[in-house]
Amino acid sequence: MPTFTPFPPPSRLMRLGFVGGGAGAFIGAIHAQAARLSSRWEIVAGALSSDPDRARQSGREWLLPSDRTYADFRTMARAEAAHPQGIDAVAIVTPNHLHAPVAEAFLAEGIDVICDKPLAPTVEDALRLVEAQQASGLVFGVTYAYAAYSMVRQARAMIRAGELGDLRQIHVEYFQEFAATLIADAGGKQPWRVDPARSGGSFTTGDIGTHAVHLASFVTGQPATSVRADFHVSGEPKDLEDTAFCHMRFGCVPGTLMVSQAAIGNQCGLRLRVFGTKAALDWNQERGDELIVTPFDAPAQRYQSGFAGGLYPEARRLARMPRGCPEGILEAWANLYTELGLAVEARRTGQVLPDGMLGYPTVKDAAAGVAFVEAAVRSNESGSWEDCELNASTDEGSTGEPGLPGKGVSVQS
Amino acid sequence: MPTFTPFPPPSRLMRLGFVGGGAGAFIGAIHAQAARLSSRWEIVAGALSSDPDRARQSGREWLLPSDRTYADFRTMARAEAAHPQGIDAVAIVTPNHLHAPVAEAFLAEGIDVICDKPLAPTVEDALRLVEAQQASGLVFGVTYAYAAYSMVRQARAMIRAGELGDLRQIHVEYFQEFAATLIADAGGKQPWRVDPARSGGSFTTGDIGTHAVHLASFVTGQPATSVRADFHVSGEPKDLEDTAFCHMRFGCVPGTLMVSQAAIGNQCGLRLRVFGTKAALDWNQERGDELIVTPFDAPAQRYQSGFAGGLYPEARRLARMPRGCPEGILEAWANLYTELGLAVEARRTGQVLPDGMLGYPTVKDAAAGVAFVEAAVRSNESGSWEDCELNASTDEGSTGEPGLPGKGVSVQS
Amino acid sequence: MPTFTPFPPPSRLMRLGFVGGGAGAFIGAIHAQAARLSSRWEIVAGALSSDPDRARQSGREWLLPSDRTYADFRTMARAEAAHPQGIDAVAIVTPNHLHAPVAEAFLAEGIDVICDKPLAPTVEDALRLVEAQQASGLVFGVTYAYAAYSMVRQARAMIRAGELGDLRQIHVEYFQEFAATLIADAGGKQPWRVDPARSGGSFTTGDIGTHAVHLASFVTGQPATSVRADFHVSGEPKDLEDTAFCHMRFGCVPGTLMVSQAAIGNQCGLRLRVFGTKAALDWNQERGDELIVTPFDAPAQRYQSGFAGGLYPEARRLARMPRGCPEGILEAWANLYTELGLAVEARRTGQVLPDGMLGYPTVKDAAAGVAFVEAAVRSNESGSWEDCELNASTDEGSTGEPGLPGKGVSVQS
Amino acid sequence: MPTFTPFPPPSRLMRLGFVGGGAGAFIGAIHAQAARLSSRWEIVAGALSSDPDRARQSGREWLLPSDRTYADFRTMARAEAAHPQGIDAVAIVTPNHLHAPVAEAFLAEGIDVICDKPLAPTVEDALRLVEAQQASGLVFGVTYAYAAYSMVRQARAMIRAGELGDLRQIHVEYFQEFAATLIADAGGKQPWRVDPARSGGSFTTGDIGTHAVHLASFVTGQPATSVRADFHVSGEPKDLEDTAFCHMRFGCVPGTLMVSQAAIGNQCGLRLRVFGTKAALDWNQERGDELIVTPFDAPAQRYQSGFAGGLYPEARRLARMPRGCPEGILEAWANLYTELGLAVEARRTGQVLPDGMLGYPTVKDAAAGVAFVEAAVRSNESGSWEDCELNASTDEGSTGEPGLPGKGVSVQS
Repeated sequence: MPTFTPFPPPSRLMRLGFVGGGAGAFIGAIHAQAARLSSRWEIVAGALSSDPDRARQSGREWLLPSDRTYADFRTMARAEAAHPQGIDAVAIVTPNHLHAPVAEAFLAEGIDVICDKPLAPTVEDALRLVEAQQASGLVFGVTYAYAAYSMVRQARAMIRAGELGDLRQIHVEYFQEFAATLIADAGGKQPWRVDPARSGGSFTTGDIGTHAVHLASFVTGQPATSVRADFHVSGEPKDLEDTAFCHMRFGCVPGTLMVSQAAIGNQCGLRLRVFGTKAALDWNQERGDELIVTPFDAPAQRYQSGFAGGLYPEARRLARMPRGCPEGILEAWANLYTELGLAVEARRTGQVLPDGMLGYPTVKDAAAGVAFVEAAVRSNESGSWEDCELNASTDEGSTGEPGLPGKGVSVQS
Repeated sequence: MPTFTPFPPPSRLMRLGFVGGGAGAFIGAIHAQAARLSSRWEIVAGALSSDPDRARQSGREWLLPSDRTYADFRTMARAEAAHPQGIDAVAIVTPNHLHAPVAEAFLAEGIDVICDKPLAPTVEDALRLVEAQQASGLVFGVTYAYAAYSMVRQARAMIRAGELGDLRQIHVEYFQEFAATLIADAGGKQPWRVDPARSGGSFTTGDIGTHAVHLASFVTGQPATSVRADFHVSGEPKDLEDTAFCHMRFGCVPGTLMVSQAAIGNQCGLRLRVFGTKAALDWNQERGDELIVTPFDAPAQRYQSGFAGGLYPEARRLARMPRGCPEGILEAWANLYTELGLAVEARRTGQVLPDGMLGYPTVKDAAAGVAFVEAAVRSNESGSWEDCELNASTDEGSTGEPGLPGKGVSVQS
Repeated sequence: MPTFTPFPPPSRLMRLGFVGGGAGAFIGAIHAQAARLSSRWEIVAGALSSDPDRARQSGREWLLPSDRTYADFRTMARAEAAHPQGIDAVAIVTPNHLHAPVAEAFLAEGIDVICDKPLAPTVEDALRLVEAQQASGLVFGVTYAYAAYSMVRQARAMIRAGELGDLRQIHVEYFQEFAATLIADAGGKQPWRVDPARSGGSFTTGDIGTHAVHLASFVTGQPATSVRADFHVSGEPKDLEDTAFCHMRFGCVPGTLMVSQAAIGNQCGLRLRVFGTKAALDWNQERGDELIVTPFDAPAQRYQSGFAGGLYPEARRLARMPRGCPEGILEAWANLYTELGLAVEARRTGQVLPDGMLGYPTVKDAAAGVAFVEAAVRSNESGSWEDCELNASTDEGSTGEPGLPGKGVSVQS
Repeated sequence: MPTFTPFPPPSRLMRLGFVGGGAGAFIGAIHAQAARLSSRWEIVAGALSSDPDRARQSGREWLLPSDRTYADFRTMARAEAAHPQGIDAVAIVTPNHLHAPVAEAFLAEGIDVICDKPLAPTVEDALRLVEAQQASGLVFGVTYAYAAYSMVRQARAMIRAGELGDLRQIHVEYFQEFAATLIADAGGKQPWRVDPARSGGSFTTGDIGTHAVHLASFVTGQPATSVRADFHVSGEPKDLEDTAFCHMRFGCVPGTLMVSQAAIGNQCGLRLRVFGTKAALDWNQERGDELIVTPFDAPAQRYQSGFAGGLYPEARRLARMPRGCPEGILEAWANLYTELGLAVEARRTGQVLPDGMLGYPTVKDAAAGVAFVEAAVRSNESGSWEDCELNASTDEGSTGEPGLPGKGVSVQS
């Protein structure tokens, strides 16, 4: 194992603002905790709700200064850009249909972006954001947080180093039960997540299938290239699929994807298996701090996160505790915020980071996710295989790493 | 839990003969050990090889009397039928293409049959055997042995009792690594298993896909009705698939099947997951003596085989040891031989066995397996969904139980 | 399950200072990350090293204001007490022999204390701190962080609710490998941890045995009352034990304790098993977000942390994420900082918290740990059972909860 | 890994008789199934009960010839010795107090012995059997069957090969729940197992503690040399201990033993952990077909039984199935009967078996178990350490292998 370079310490805390995340929003609290745990960010501003009263109330709960609690994201973007201690980056944790307009507004003001998926309702919209990011040279991170588990990084490093040999099969699954009982609201309307008008053509494929595909591509270095999908409603009746089974091609490697949010008895069952000509790897999010690698005709080996032998720099660098001290999903999220903090600071200071130090997902990865969902929807209708790769001019980003400051004008190639 | 009726004791050991199983044949030894472990059979005759010298030599190793060591299965069938202490049943453990002719020969002599899968190269051939069995009223058991694990029986009983609610998804997978390195023999010829001329249109779908489909149907009570297959060669080049991914319909329940014999890092990874409206079940052959059942929003429960609380009669009846004493695959095989011993004895004595006591797979289950393989091969070629159900006159057998003596002229309906 | 009251939101961030934790100190970073993750603290001052240069350098790395970076803890205590925005609490993460004098210095200035164990070298010293805390009415939390895992809280709640019946056996073990190779430093001197002059009569019993005993007492409500110890050196030669096996009495419940820091192949193997007349529980730190409960003659049940059914308020209140999203040890540490933040804020504001909301370990728990270590050392020498309970006037604290503001003049009874 | 010599095939089935095992006796059926599964024995005679009617009835159920169904073990010993096809060996599965007199009766007739533990009520009685075996040169196997799991053999081979380095700690535990509710019979009398008059000074230490100690000694090659015991009643009141915690010395290696048969929530929880200077091993009977080995600062490795890479000949030779096909406890029992069949055949034919091929426990191992129980009882009374080693003239047997035909006049040294 090569020795590793630890992350450089921050010269100051990066300043983070939030759009969305107000009262009751679960995901906003995750971002905030992860940013704090990373020890690289302070949260200083927010437009936490589109409802002005809730925005104010949430701002107080978040202990934000009242003059930096905004009722409207456009106002916030302009005000923060003008503020002498303005935010370095915005975290976008709104309902899905707002991701793209909010991101555009902050990019336009020169503020780095951290955005939840899905990026945009259509590939065209997503590609417009890719272009906006490329033109601006700003950091644009997307919170496929599972890929930031240290054992996922170990998995990727082992594949890159050839420990699995040539890849022959890629299987990824993600089973949850939460939407089995999802029903119409009091007024008889479907929740927005399962309303085709507001969510596009997919519920679960977009919501968690994109996580699964990103994970598979990130670890194996193979973009999802085509898909044959079989959509179902397994839970209470709804207008969009809550279950999808897909035959996949990741480059030339065949595989499968299974996702369901109405799989009773399952919680957060994201599991990736890759079979190569030398060994298999098996990573399961519910025991995310371990990685099982089984070579041909040999005992299975259980890697664990932490200060541990046998880890590649990409995994070892993320250790906070000794091996045997479990690392949870918030640590994965915090890893993402650590890398984004580094990237944002490097962009502003011109600091050159070592090759391979950063692994956060980019706007291109998010656009690849949108392309996958569109293709899966088409395939479910046509019964045929459908291409799901982004066009050639951008596809290298779909499984790659963010570019690095010093290599060009922007931190993303 | 209802109380259970244990298996009635044998009045004598049933007499078993073997066709196949000679020197070096792994599967013959499994059958023989299972028959002995069941304490219901004695092995008294055999045509262990088609090579006369090997037949004699193997007969000596098996400690068979020399006058009941045959060089030819047809001679054996006639001689044993005429013998005053002739065999009650024959175990057929030959290469696949001989299963059907050997079975026919013994059925014709009025001898009960225990046969490995695949039953026959085509559905037509398989149905001819079904008809022969029906006409004869003889016992015809097929060694889908995984279905005889007590925890598989528990799974089936729980579903029948409604503990899972309505079924919504069925996923079955079976991953092995052994054929990853399978290569041509010294003369440059492919082994018979991967030779289309000798194995029909499928290698792995037939070899282990049938086990997986039978298991899924047996546990859920749902026959495989249609399939959309995606075949691959993951291991060394060969002329037939060593890997298949299938979208499935089990009756009205959607699901998936994944099988590979070139999945490096995997051993005997047969796993069945069923998701219902109340709970999920998860059974994994490599830990075959446990069954995980997880109700909605509640802790997972781990059932174990043995003299244990919480088991249905179908599982409890198979216990040989206290809970916590592991039950292996040979015990599953022995369970099959116990049930077949009971069925053979009951057919001969007219004994009436309680409803639901027997669960061994029948010739119809085996025919259903052949139909599935044919449909999968067709689907891989057509790219479309293909029907895989046997025709209506026999389909109840594909997931049902063997008929019982006393209910009609034969032990199978 | 009763419904639960969530933690009240903070009215402001509590201000935290550090003594110790400078460059290279692993445990300081854990405290700091946990405090940040709790979203209830800001770190504003520190005497991070007794070496002035390292103190300044570490202060810069922690991004502390230079005028609140101290070279000396006594100066810091006085200055912060006088500061208009002075720290609300101090986190003491120094080498062990400094814990007591630093704590005394801050208590004397009216500043709440968060202290690592061991509290003090002798029971007498420890009791002096207990008295100082009692006299002052200040919050004094001790970082037995394992007890703050939500599944440990679930275990305690289940025992309190009678789900295990009467307790009959308590087994706790803690195996690590890190000190197997611990050797003399360059000058030939033993590290301070294994130097009797600096560490008292025990290495491992004090270092991790105290964690194990606290965990057992916390979960079961039974103080360690007597011990019969067998000390060993399993790793490289050293002057103090790195391994101890103990027969225990926890009140009237017999049990065992096994600890080693030279147990090669073990990482952070802290495991508690409690056997009652109705069920057993099994908690293992390396999979700390699950809890296995097995009733008599019934399937084992696996509880998981998170927003999950079946959890008592004590566990449910600590959830940050849905079930299935792993919670690591930093979340346990952060739970501790959440409770300490609440306690410190409540002490200052007079807020009355609901009964049973707080579970952080107190100075009395820490004193009980010191008493246990002394008794184990005596027992290893005498070969006899030795009492290890604190005297009656304080023993209720050894397994109890911190007192609550509003119930008396102090937050600790 | 060296290549291995498989077991030689039998020249004929060895003839086995049973004393004990009649109607309702659980353990007799285990022996019988194991003997059959080994494919080296036929069961031809029995004195299955001391009650003549039950003896006859059980003989019929076992399908024994009526003229070889005896009502009395002494008659059986004489008659079988005189029979031209008399039994080669007797399996003794009576209540404990009959083990010694039955064994003596068959040894006196020149018949090999397979006996359950405990061997005898006192060390003196046990040593008399050791002497009788030594004088006769007969095979005397004892059914510590856990030691016949192939993964236990792998564990022993790895330690012998130095893969663990020097041994530093040995921990063995065995927890069951079955006697938690054990109560007086209808007449108000305690069952014989917990009646001091019939069971000697110990219940659980003798019943399962001996299994645990044998396992530890067998795997590590270290005899139990001294013990400090702490006895308890954890279940319903009884006159003998159902729970014992022991500090141990295995030669110069310290360790612990924990056993209970009133540990609710535990089934057959026999677990051995050995920590060496290079690696740890962990074997758990409830997953007896796997073995976890964890080297210092390296991933844990999971060995599995079967036709598998990485196994030593001692483990590989016992494989019946491919890796991934679970091996249960009956396979371990059958391994024992395979070895005993080989030993009995070799003694009669003068066949010389390769060194290290046999690992069955001998009468000396059983005598060592009796010595351990006596010492534990003394220690619990005295509160002191007590020696538990057999005297020097026999102690090599306590952890050794059976002697081999061809090396001397007897198969046991």
